[in-house]
Amino acid sequence: MALTIADISFASRLFMGTASYPNQQVLLDALDAGEPSLVTMAIRRISLDAYGGSLLDTLGSRYRLLPNTAGCATVRDAVLTAELAREALETGWIKLEIIGDRETLYPDAELLLQGTAELVKAGFTVLPYCTDDPILCRKLADLGAAAVMPLGSPIGSGLGIANPYNIERICAQSPVPVVLDAGIGTASDATFAMELGCDAVLLNTAIARAHDPVRMARAMRDAVRAGYDARHAGRIPRRLRAEASSPELGLVGA
Amino acid sequence: MALTIADISFASRLFMGTASYPNQQVLLDALDAGEPSLVTMAIRRISLDAYGGSLLDTLGSRYRLLPNTAGCATVRDAVLTAELAREALETGWIKLEIIGDRETLYPDAELLLQGTAELVKAGFTVLPYCTDDPILCRKLADLGAAAVMPLGSPIGSGLGIANPYNIERICAQSPVPVVLDAGIGTASDATFAMELGCDAVLLNTAIARAHDPVRMARAMRDAVRAGYDARHAGRIPRRLRAEASSPELGLVGA
Amino acid sequence: MALTIADISFASRLFMGTASYPNQQVLLDALDAGEPSLVTMAIRRISLDAYGGSLLDTLGSRYRLLPNTAGCATVRDAVLTAELAREALETGWIKLEIIGDRETLYPDAELLLQGTAELVKAGFTVLPYCTDDPILCRKLADLGAAAVMPLGSPIGSGLGIANPYNIERICAQSPVPVVLDAGIGTASDATFAMELGCDAVLLNTAIARAHDPVRMARAMRDAVRAGYDARHAGRIPRRLRAEASSPELGLVGA
Amino acid sequence: MALTIADISFASRLFMGTASYPNQQVLLDALDAGEPSLVTMAIRRISLDAYGGSLLDTLGSRYRLLPNTAGCATVRDAVLTAELAREALETGWIKLEIIGDRETLYPDAELLLQGTAELVKAGFTVLPYCTDDPILCRKLADLGAAAVMPLGSPIGSGLGIANPYNIERICAQSPVPVVLDAGIGTASDATFAMELGCDAVLLNTAIARAHDPVRMARAMRDAVRAGYDARHAGRIPRRLRAEASSPELGLVGA
Repeated sequence: MALTIADISFASRLFMGTASYPNQQVLLDALDAGEPSLVTMAIRRISLDAYGGSLLDTLGSRYRLLPNTAGCATVRDAVLTAELAREALETGWIKLEIIGDRETLYPDAELLLQGTAELVKAGFTVLPYCTDDPILCRKLADLGAAAVMPLGSPIGSGLGIANPYNIERICAQSPVPVVLDAGIGTASDATFAMELGCDAVLLNTAIARAHDPVRMARAMRDAVRAGYDARHAGRIPRRLRAEASSPELGLVGA
Repeated sequence: MALTIADISFASRLFMGTASYPNQQVLLDALDAGEPSLVTMAIRRISLDAYGGSLLDTLGSRYRLLPNTAGCATVRDAVLTAELAREALETGWIKLEIIGDRETLYPDAELLLQGTAELVKAGFTVLPYCTDDPILCRKLADLGAAAVMPLGSPIGSGLGIANPYNIERICAQSPVPVVLDAGIGTASDATFAMELGCDAVLLNTAIARAHDPVRMARAMRDAVRAGYDARHAGRIPRRLRAEASSPELGLVGA
Repeated sequence: MALTIADISFASRLFMGTASYPNQQVLLDALDAGEPSLVTMAIRRISLDAYGGSLLDTLGSRYRLLPNTAGCATVRDAVLTAELAREALETGWIKLEIIGDRETLYPDAELLLQGTAELVKAGFTVLPYCTDDPILCRKLADLGAAAVMPLGSPIGSGLGIANPYNIERICAQSPVPVVLDAGIGTASDATFAMELGCDAVLLNTAIARAHDPVRMARAMRDAVRAGYDARHAGRIPRRLRAEASSPELGLVGA
Repeated sequence: MALTIADISFASRLFMGTASYPNQQVLLDALDAGEPSLVTMAIRRISLDAYGGSLLDTLGSRYRLLPNTAGCATVRDAVLTAELAREALETGWIKLEIIGDRETLYPDAELLLQGTAELVKAGFTVLPYCTDDPILCRKLADLGAAAVMPLGSPIGSGLGIANPYNIERICAQSPVPVVLDAGIGTASDATFAMELGCDAVLLNTAIARAHDPVRMARAMRDAVRAGYDARHAGRIPRRLRAEASSPELGLVGA
């Protein structure tokens, strides 16, 4: 069953960022290996021609583009950035980031609610990057967010999913898709996110700054598939005692 | 780079058991989906015709067979079972299980050392199912074990890898391949095992007793690949602070 | 060094609730054993004479009382409750709870900010029960909260500290005291909270519903002391290799 | 209920080592603060007069002494050391350490079984330092060990209890007292060990090399008491949903 966000279907449940790659060729090769269905990019970087026009054309022809408002710390700044992105990339989709702290780059929940309300009203398809707070996620969905993107742990930290309890609860009750965003360090983190019930995983640093980004992209592609399949295959319960898989009935000679 | 045990190359790093499946067709479909390169079976069950001769022929034509001594609690019993297996399956490979406790089905380390010595002397290719004790693993390799198979947690428990520290240390120093055996509950456990440095993962209950064994087999195939690739792609370090993936240099209008 | 909140010194870093005890005598005995310096109570329960006037007099003569707004889901309701509490208990201290979800009883961060602002303006000493979001905690302190009370995990869940990373970060940067509130299940959770840097621990269910509340209160008293001392004694670093505590220099006979 | 090992009662469940202290006075002060009922010492160090005779007299007059065979790697060496200790300290108690690996200082399970059998036969009261393998612990008790001392994690590592599952199982089934030995890093680790069911905790590095050993000793004294009381007070179950401690019946004005 394909993932659907705001009436758009996505064949892959891996979303990838485009920052911090050693060079443009590695980025393109990693995207080939990871097979994402959506890629994010900081609109501020685009405006500086960090990516040439031709790269944008290439990406836009293969993937759905999701500009983000990385670096914004006020609602006004984020809204302005979203408008710039809409113009530049001809998309109304926006990943809303409003940062409250330079150390953790955690979102400011209060401003995020205001920014989401404002951008939804202005016709955007809003995917807010938020904390793992189930109440916040519900309120964002109530305001019209197309998906919620709770963090696993701080951006770029590689600490994985700091609070699986919260992520699982958010997934269990969210009326919109849940995309785990930030904190993934390695493949098992991505698998685990999907097992907790996430609809997709968005990651950047774990691939871009791996020793071999292309191989890590392939690992993440498989990891997301594995977690999604495992979730839907229905895992065995945890037991505190062993349970023989080779029954001991009918021993030799008995 | 292919896995090699006792001079035999294995294309896949997933090993699967054959017990506890709802029926024979599901077993065969799960094997198709999981694409293991080796399958285990309890020789005691074979002797009871739980598997018909035709099933054995089918399995033997596609996979390397690894009979095990499940249910044995003495060296004598295990050696006898290994000899029966060699005769019945025409293989000198044996997964040595000597159980010390009915609750945990944990191996008896002392007897395992004796049994390994005896079976190696008798010309077997011995893969002992052992605890996650690095000293024991080293001694088993010294005695001539072709691989070591430390447990993640009790057989059939689905508790995953109870002591990652020990598994990582075993992998770091083992002169023979390390196959994580027992305890896997879901895909992320298998991915994690590979990330810790295991050469392969052997599992049975997590697939056979999943709600949908065929889909779980596919998940495990991808999970093992993901973990192996992630291990060799070189993950990012863990950081306690965030690190922006979208640099904040050159903000809009600046 | 004593804990100080809003210019009041507290000899003990254990704060206790008063709900859910088997009976009033067990509550009093548990308070004797736990030696808290502050006790909380739901003002709504008081209004129902769940505690007789004489109990309130007893508690008030021994401990600082902290009425809470448990059960409130709106700012208006919480402010009304705080005013009732001020009148009934003759204290301007209030633990502000504004719940956003009946399943988790998690606070609503947005309403909490509004409620804190309003109550601070009205002259209350406000201790908000909040999520473990460092940004929220900083904003509450900026609004004039006398302390912040982040949750470990859901009220009454006994799941302990779900996200130690966040709690440690909140403690590292908070300009006001941090009181871990909710989720504690057993003594080691309380010790751990203090080791992460919390200034105090508030708990209720873990004591009141233990099999032996009085003994658990004593355990918690010692646990909080142990964690505070360990924090300030400066623990050894974690090492991945062993380090002999008994040096091997000068072996016998050498 | 006091702890009893080999018919000797112990008032305190904290056992302390004597190595690695900054100086002798700090050692004595830490012992005063920790209030252990038993102290261990490496017999090899004693033989070198690392501790003067007067220190030994002081310790021996206040605590039960438990010499250990730290640094031994063979049964013969360990037995010889135990005999030296018996002569020098006039005690038949011995903590048996036979190390199998210089990196982890993990015990060699096979040699430990042999050494225990030999020393029990020679009339010693044997407390073997062992891995967290339930089968090994049972076999040691069967051979006559007076207690078993499974490791939490490598000596001096401060990693805490790497495998709580195994420690809990050992405690649940051991016919002799279980003393958690090695790996403790801070107070909550000691509390947790007792909550898992351990009868006592033995530690050295976590106190001796803390920034303030005397304060850490006091923390450990309280931590062990807290864990023991919490264990016996009967903790609340873990729940995945919140449970209000302040009932919402009878709201104000309702």
